[in-house]
Amino acid sequence: MYPYFCAMKKVGILGGGQLGRMLLQEAANFPVETWVMENDPECPAAHLCQHFVVGNIRSYDDVYRFGKNCDALTIEIESVNVEALEQLEKEGVTIIPKPAALRIIKNKIRQKEFYQQHQLPTAAFRTVENRSALQDCLDFLPAAMKLGEGGYDGKGVQILEKAEDISLGFDAPSVLEKKVTIDKEIAIIVAINAKGETALYPPVEMIFDPYLNLLDYQVAPADILQKILWRAEAIAITLAKAFQSPGLFAIELFVDRNGDVLINETAPRVHNSGHHTIEANTCSQYEMMWRLLLDLPLGNTAALLPASLVNLIGEKGHSGPVVYTGLEEVLKMDETFIHLYGKKETRPGRKMGHVTILGRDRLDLTRKAQQVKRLLKVESN
Amino acid sequence: MYPYFCAMKKVGILGGGQLGRMLLQEAANFPVETWVMENDPECPAAHLCQHFVVGNIRSYDDVYRFGKNCDALTIEIESVNVEALEQLEKEGVTIIPKPAALRIIKNKIRQKEFYQQHQLPTAAFRTVENRSALQDCLDFLPAAMKLGEGGYDGKGVQILEKAEDISLGFDAPSVLEKKVTIDKEIAIIVAINAKGETALYPPVEMIFDPYLNLLDYQVAPADILQKILWRAEAIAITLAKAFQSPGLFAIELFVDRNGDVLINETAPRVHNSGHHTIEANTCSQYEMMWRLLLDLPLGNTAALLPASLVNLIGEKGHSGPVVYTGLEEVLKMDETFIHLYGKKETRPGRKMGHVTILGRDRLDLTRKAQQVKRLLKVESN
Repeated sequence: MYPYFCAMKKVGILGGGQLGRMLLQEAANFPVETWVMENDPECPAAHLCQHFVVGNIRSYDDVYRFGKNCDALTIEIESVNVEALEQLEKEGVTIIPKPAALRIIKNKIRQKEFYQQHQLPTAAFRTVENRSALQDCLDFLPAAMKLGEGGYDGKGVQILEKAEDISLGFDAPSVLEKKVTIDKEIAIIVAINAKGETALYPPVEMIFDPYLNLLDYQVAPADILQKILWRAEAIAITLAKAFQSPGLFAIELFVDRNGDVLINETAPRVHNSGHHTIEANTCSQYEMMWRLLLDLPLGNTAALLPASLVNLIGEKGHSGPVVYTGLEEVLKMDETFIHLYGKKETRPGRKMGHVTILGRDRLDLTRKAQQVKRLLKVESN
Repeated sequence: MYPYFCAMKKVGILGGGQLGRMLLQEAANFPVETWVMENDPECPAAHLCQHFVVGNIRSYDDVYRFGKNCDALTIEIESVNVEALEQLEKEGVTIIPKPAALRIIKNKIRQKEFYQQHQLPTAAFRTVENRSALQDCLDFLPAAMKLGEGGYDGKGVQILEKAEDISLGFDAPSVLEKKVTIDKEIAIIVAINAKGETALYPPVEMIFDPYLNLLDYQVAPADILQKILWRAEAIAITLAKAFQSPGLFAIELFVDRNGDVLINETAPRVHNSGHHTIEANTCSQYEMMWRLLLDLPLGNTAALLPASLVNLIGEKGHSGPVVYTGLEEVLKMDETFIHLYGKKETRPGRKMGHVTILGRDRLDLTRKAQQVKRLLKVESN
């Protein structure tokens, strides 16, 4: 009469950072046997899985050996060995996202070309082979130079305002992206399953510190006009379908001063811009990922309440064993949820945790986010 | 300027069932190193802690050795070796709840006498040494006979309606509790910290199947008159303070036909009646327990939304490797959250998971709870 859900699937995660950690916190609600591979046996996800394997996610042999033992595999970081995943896929392992999609996204040049091929809006760009090739692009400045491979968390991006900045450029294949006058930065996470069914999370808005040009906090849902929402959602769905792969796609978008929506970049996995979904949405991005991996129905992405989110970042000038200053003050705040990632050492700019704030009142969400930023510091003795 | 939160505390949990599992899912958000002791290395909590120790929670030596290595200890089941905890407490280990409180609660006779000593309302009772002593209590029937020690999850309770039922009674020290005409059964969870500060969760109402006399589902908040709420809260706070121990106390209460509120029994730990707080309340009972164990401020117990909760219980006639029938249908329901406990084998009556439902409309919460019960069955092949 009803379908049965039988033996526990073995699912592997490549990478053991905080995204893996949060995936595993949620995995415990589902019928799944969890495996993680990562070099560092003290990484944030290591102790929350059934089976931890020490290995290099960039190594063909390590990834192949690890994946061969799993029914399904996913990633929590893009810098994995795609060739091994392609071989595993041929041999019948479910890989989400598909290696072909990952191959496109992993390289920023291929990613930009993909948007262009699919006539999806993105900032004008040129590809450059190395630093000296920048000499031919002076007419294209100001621009953002993005390393083709290996960029992560703000590394691998260099703003080139004028000719003199060229010496700051990367000496490797890169994308040169024409500077856009940004009104807002938003992100939409799309879930797409093997049948092509999609579910969209409400867009998140990134608020930047105007002085430091650093992400200050996030608010969901984004405060945008209805017509911009429709445009952003249409782009997000089209893009997710274009990848021809089940998975979660976190799509970062620029809204420019004309109300045009441009794709900035995409991550084919759970993403920082979806952390708040743990508390703020019925089905969190982490639960959604398990539903995809276990071939279960898509979840409900509706927001229970609006949310803001502050990343807890290692303070400048602090390296070594971590100390959370002001933790108690933040724990006294109402509707505030703390997530520490269990990293023993802090470094300047390292993501050490986050705080989610729920509330109906946007002003209150903003005020509390600023309060958390002011109170809670990630330092070292 | 601000207080610092320094080195990670080592906290041990005695017992590795689903309560331990949910404690550990939450632990990952806090700065804590987790230890679990339990006989079965495949128990629900085993793979979610940093350090799992195989050991007998009823053995003095095992508990002492395990606890000696921890800064703080807690329990997820009462049947632990209290003597070892008392010794560890003397040696400076923080034990929550305190062994003295645990000793009272662990034995149903002592528990009832404690209510009486503190003039807290509870059903009239007698203590009996063995089955033959029941002969002197015929005037006290109908009554519920509750084993002093060792009862758990409905086991250790026998209803004695009339003289002929005496042969069903336990032949061991027990409480004989006069039958109460129950209008409602509710539960309140109280958190109390070392300073004596308290935080109360909104009461939960247990809805029983009138035919099977089994818990059907729970709804929070309970649908009770304001004056009954006040009475129940006053009793809960008085009782929690009387134990003179920090901890979480889950207090089950009867409301009788006269609107009197009587204490049924107390558990000094996270409790089934608080599972819904994971999604429905700002600070879940599990997060609250970590705040207590780590000496952090009490959390906010306010409900974000009303909730209902269905326990997923092993069906009669099914023993062996578990199969969840109807899981996909339930995963399609909105505002519904599944928690499976990772137990490989089902048995009749075994708690295998639960489903929480959120919603503003009580009728909808009830309807969905019944729908989950109808759709989702815990079976074996």
